[in-house]
Amino acid sequence: MNVKISLPDGTVREYASPVKGSEIASSISEGLARNALAIEVNGEIWDLSRPITEDAAVKILTWNDKGGKSTFWHSSAHLLAEALEALYPGVKFGIGPAIDNGFYYDVDLGENRSLGEHDLAAIEAKMKELAKKESAYIRKDVSKADALDYFSKKGDQYKLELISGLDDGKITFYQQGNFTDLCRGPHIPSTGSIKAVKLLNVAGAYWRGNEKNKMLTRLYGITFPKQKELEEYLHVLEEAKKRDHRKLGRELELFAFSEKVGMGLPLWLPKGTILRERLEQFMRRAQVRAGYDPVVTPHIGGKNLYVTSGHYEKYGKDSFQPIHTPDEGEEFLLKPMNCPHHCEIYKTKPRSYRDLPIRLAEFGTVYRYEQSGELHGLTRVRGFTQDDAHIFCRPDQVKEEFIKVIDLVLHVFKSLGFENYTAQVSLRDPANKEKYIGQDHLWDKAEREIQEAADERGLKTVAVEGEAAFYGPKLDFMVKDALGRSWQLGTIQVDYNLPERFELEYVGSDNQKHRPVMIHRAPFGSLERFIAVLIEHCAGNFPLWLAPDQIAVLPISERFNDYAAKVYALLKEQDIRGVLDDRDEKIGRKIRDAETKKIPYMLIVGEREVAENQVAVRKHGEGDKGSVSLDTFISGFKVECAAP
Amino acid sequence: MNVKISLPDGTVREYASPVKGSEIASSISEGLARNALAIEVNGEIWDLSRPITEDAAVKILTWNDKGGKSTFWHSSAHLLAEALEALYPGVKFGIGPAIDNGFYYDVDLGENRSLGEHDLAAIEAKMKELAKKESAYIRKDVSKADALDYFSKKGDQYKLELISGLDDGKITFYQQGNFTDLCRGPHIPSTGSIKAVKLLNVAGAYWRGNEKNKMLTRLYGITFPKQKELEEYLHVLEEAKKRDHRKLGRELELFAFSEKVGMGLPLWLPKGTILRERLEQFMRRAQVRAGYDPVVTPHIGGKNLYVTSGHYEKYGKDSFQPIHTPDEGEEFLLKPMNCPHHCEIYKTKPRSYRDLPIRLAEFGTVYRYEQSGELHGLTRVRGFTQDDAHIFCRPDQVKEEFIKVIDLVLHVFKSLGFENYTAQVSLRDPANKEKYIGQDHLWDKAEREIQEAADERGLKTVAVEGEAAFYGPKLDFMVKDALGRSWQLGTIQVDYNLPERFELEYVGSDNQKHRPVMIHRAPFGSLERFIAVLIEHCAGNFPLWLAPDQIAVLPISERFNDYAAKVYALLKEQDIRGVLDDRDEKIGRKIRDAETKKIPYMLIVGEREVAENQVAVRKHGEGDKGSVSLDTFISGFKVECAAP
Repeated sequence: MNVKISLPDGTVREYASPVKGSEIASSISEGLARNALAIEVNGEIWDLSRPITEDAAVKILTWNDKGGKSTFWHSSAHLLAEALEALYPGVKFGIGPAIDNGFYYDVDLGENRSLGEHDLAAIEAKMKELAKKESAYIRKDVSKADALDYFSKKGDQYKLELISGLDDGKITFYQQGNFTDLCRGPHIPSTGSIKAVKLLNVAGAYWRGNEKNKMLTRLYGITFPKQKELEEYLHVLEEAKKRDHRKLGRELELFAFSEKVGMGLPLWLPKGTILRERLEQFMRRAQVRAGYDPVVTPHIGGKNLYVTSGHYEKYGKDSFQPIHTPDEGEEFLLKPMNCPHHCEIYKTKPRSYRDLPIRLAEFGTVYRYEQSGELHGLTRVRGFTQDDAHIFCRPDQVKEEFIKVIDLVLHVFKSLGFENYTAQVSLRDPANKEKYIGQDHLWDKAEREIQEAADERGLKTVAVEGEAAFYGPKLDFMVKDALGRSWQLGTIQVDYNLPERFELEYVGSDNQKHRPVMIHRAPFGSLERFIAVLIEHCAGNFPLWLAPDQIAVLPISERFNDYAAKVYALLKEQDIRGVLDDRDEKIGRKIRDAETKKIPYMLIVGEREVAENQVAVRKHGEGDKGSVSLDTFISGFKVECAAP
Repeated sequence: MNVKISLPDGTVREYASPVKGSEIASSISEGLARNALAIEVNGEIWDLSRPITEDAAVKILTWNDKGGKSTFWHSSAHLLAEALEALYPGVKFGIGPAIDNGFYYDVDLGENRSLGEHDLAAIEAKMKELAKKESAYIRKDVSKADALDYFSKKGDQYKLELISGLDDGKITFYQQGNFTDLCRGPHIPSTGSIKAVKLLNVAGAYWRGNEKNKMLTRLYGITFPKQKELEEYLHVLEEAKKRDHRKLGRELELFAFSEKVGMGLPLWLPKGTILRERLEQFMRRAQVRAGYDPVVTPHIGGKNLYVTSGHYEKYGKDSFQPIHTPDEGEEFLLKPMNCPHHCEIYKTKPRSYRDLPIRLAEFGTVYRYEQSGELHGLTRVRGFTQDDAHIFCRPDQVKEEFIKVIDLVLHVFKSLGFENYTAQVSLRDPANKEKYIGQDHLWDKAEREIQEAADERGLKTVAVEGEAAFYGPKLDFMVKDALGRSWQLGTIQVDYNLPERFELEYVGSDNQKHRPVMIHRAPFGSLERFIAVLIEHCAGNFPLWLAPDQIAVLPISERFNDYAAKVYALLKEQDIRGVLDDRDEKIGRKIRDAETKKIPYMLIVGEREVAENQVAVRKHGEGDKGSVSLDTFISGFKVECAAP
């Protein structure tokens, strides 16, 4: 009998049953067969060696697939276990899953044995030695009794505990080389594909995550099919550590947290505030040019405002609780979003079709409660400032407004050095149109026009059905930073819901009342999160126009402090930001400190500079640029630091 | 026997007992006798005709004294009553007190009689007629029985009700001309001083303010010793109405309130936001030049932050109540002040004497609960933005810092056209030094240095003992606006308390730890209140650099719309703010509308302007300025609108 196998490109092939994944891969191409790690069968990942006996939709998984990677790392966890058993006889095993980046295994080394960072190299070496044996991962069905028997003999109480929770008839073992594990699989064909191994660190972890249980030793590792990939990964890891915005935020004195003010509530220090203000100023200018009107609204609103908007019903319980007043029984909420306030501004006077679009922009600080465990630097906070705006327009203006917002978003990306981005158009689920608010023909039109707008601006997009919010379709940007990590930035969201809930209206050319469409957009998103991404993207080396300190004036010795002070004062007069380092320190030290602070320009002054009324220019990360007059320096500087 | 009378200048005169106020006034000078209205005896105001029989400290009150004015107006209320009794026989009287500006009398005209605005002129005329009779106000002690008898006969149930609440032996009547009233006094000598009378309006008022009682008719009036003073007052009143910032705020679309967002929480509309942003930008620049560091802090803080600062204990119960979190039992407060946050920023790293002064500046929006009845436009709100800064300095830097802040405050006054100001130095009560926190010698030094700083900058100051806060001395500015009304703006406050409570420290040159001194200062105070004052001061005619719309381009007819649009685009390119009025309206109408909006410049374009590539310039409130090329206009404009 034959089975029909559908491939991702839509073709269907017939094979004599049973057929294995490895056979299917070979039948397609030799290269695919060589790179195949596992096979997805009707959405489930299988070993390449497992027989397929019924018609199925399949996909051969390689290292380029998420499922390929996770299978590879899961098999690597077994390889780690094999190495540990070889090096630490009697070691007991908890669980050893693949994770987002690599894998771990929780182990119990037994009394009086422990593991530290210094032991990792030997374990890595053993893993590589075992990998070279190209042992196959062999799947075996076992009865519960046999399974219990096997691990009783081994004396591994953790596996016994796991098995006792499983149903008989559904238990499988996997074996490679001398190591056998209780495991559902799937696995890669052989240890031979694991060419590069790195154990990253050792931590403690309670068995089953319960602090009443024994603390096991958790070993984190990562593996690759090629040594070069490991090296690249370790480089990125190293770089990411250096660029961590929390670390740079502290070192460059950009922001801080205080226990008394509260977790997740950043205090912006002077240098960070300059960065913020420059970004705000940049956006303010771009928005004025694009026809936005600035507004300012309070950080609280009556509870009823959020009942009207629907936010209270949706988020009220999980967020900061209502603020009561001493006497009059009013209730206010910290605003989680600016949109309800902007709807109220829209309602302050009657609007005509001629007034639209109205684009209300606000750097609005909003407060949203996050569990303390979720907080992370500036990327997950409890208070943040959005470069928010709401466009109130007619349905026939949606496309034009989308194009304008796309232009603004791309202006931001370009100005801040994000060159690598894609976009996603989130559409309705066409099979469940009743889930969405708003008129059917308006949805169709808006979805089509968002795609057209994206196409006209040459965006690489993917359209995903079912990803729209219930209140409207949207366009999301995904940006890759300098380390190749993806960040979602700059959502543009159509909203048919709030205009309805706030009963917004305009008088049309037909003299009738109509509902405007609302578009939410925030190119930075949150200033806090954007600054975090920016810090990590540029490793704290901000573009000149953004840099909190743009220059450091460094007198070679105290003898030149007066001249340095004069230079510094002249720079200040030109609104150039910076520091004068007139400490009694060696010039080498002063230069090193300025480099550490990532100050773009150093102006060094000594005997010759004073005599010739010049400054010796040194550029951060580039070194000496020669001596010029201060005027010459300033005019070049001004050109370079013009804000985009 | 003689009585010893101390006069305000410290001299003591002896008079044969009894002596009347009028006699004392005469003995001092003829002019004082002529202008005397009443006399303050040991802090209590008496009739000039009342005999003084014991030693006393006195002050002769004239129109220039608050007590003189209120006595004058109280007597005027009696004159009003006399006039009403003459015109409306049988009228019954409630109460008739002096108020801040004038007086009122609540009256019951009886069945089927009422009073409207149109009746006021006749009553005023009668008052003036009676005043000319120069009737003396005569005080009479009456027994309770006689008092009840008198008003029973008159049938005045209101006075009867009042008398029934009084103790026998303490009841006095006052009589002038044909009118007798139950009254404690005091009064001026005669109706003859009342030269100018204006009844302002008629309102309803419940007897004794209780809505279960009968509604009486309340007549408001004001009187003056000179007709010219009345005219000036009425002019100011008229102007104040026109300049009311709530009215202009609505007309110029600067701000609005929304019931759903909440009372006292302004929504800044686009034009008001431009005004705010321009003021912030102005202050930001001035502060950068003055060595301030900008910071940004959240609008909430942990409750414990305010427990530490002492704000919770002092204001917690009367303010917005704590914000609870859904799960973790944390409590936050809307920040009523920025200082605790800035103290926490100070504490983010160790500070040395070389680092001081540290000047942390923030446009910090704070929230303070006010009773709804207290709210008033932008002057009394529940949320407002301070141009706040805190200077952390060494004790030896207090004077220099005060001088710098005074310079900044005067820069603000000068730039915004406030030319009339005085200052008050608020000192400790030297008799109660224990009431104040901080070391004695530091207080002495700071008080002396504040005065010196004010003197060095040529400020007109008064020093007032006992007016300092418990935590430090201060300097307050009083500014007179264009209508002569006084506003307190720009307090500079020394604070020894918060550095103590937050345990702020710096390492001195002696390598020991010291407490810094903190100086609070906010030249605008609250942006909201400052803008309210500014609107009323300049009647909405903002200086060019502040004006939300700086120009209006007005094509004479639709034929010139294209040229107008070109002109408008060129202005926008130059960052000039404005509107293009291309409606299908007559040019006269367009000009009127632009004048109403108080737009500083109108550029009118028609046949000739198109032909000669010019614009016809019209200035708000000044009229036609002739035609020039757009380039010429722009360069002149740029010079004029440079922000100070």
